[in-house]
Amino acid sequence: MINTEILGLIAATLTTSAYIPQTYKVLKEKSAKDFSWMWLIFMFVGIFLWFIYGLNIKNIPLIMANGISLISLIVIMVVKYVYRQS
Amino acid sequence: MINTEILGLIAATLTTSAYIPQTYKVLKEKSAKDFSWMWLIFMFVGIFLWFIYGLNIKNIPLIMANGISLISLIVIMVVKYVYRQS
Repeated sequence: MINTEILGLIAATLTTSAYIPQTYKVLKEKSAKDFSWMWLIFMFVGIFLWFIYGLNIKNIPLIMANGISLISLIVIMVVKYVYRQS
Repeated sequence: MINTEILGLIAATLTTSAYIPQTYKVLKEKSAKDFSWMWLIFMFVGIFLWFIYGLNIKNIPLIMANGISLISLIVIMVVKYVYRQS
């Protein structure tokens, strides 16, 4: 059904593009203390599996969307670790 | 393919359960300042669309998983708003 596909496409675009301003904020403020390590790790592994799934079925949107989210999560984890004292 | 289904199921379980310790941390520390409003709003709308999609296709796991994430995002937004001065 075309409506269902469009719904999924909009949902995926939103949940991916959400990570761009979030990564910018974390980098600008050099703070990510409010993020839970468990959230970061579970999300990373979960999204990594979606990424692999995208590779398996050779689906470019899935690979792109999850790739962007993975890079963002790595940046947030690095900032959280590096600035853990402040 | 059964492997692909299992991959999706594990991915969905991880990206949903990630929100439970995150919500606990935000509530305990009464701080969510590191979350960007754009991330929160884009994720909320995106996950809400997945929730509607789940309702449309009457898929209980999709409804449950996205319902849990939505409740978590609401809690984070409320904490961020209420404790915005501190």
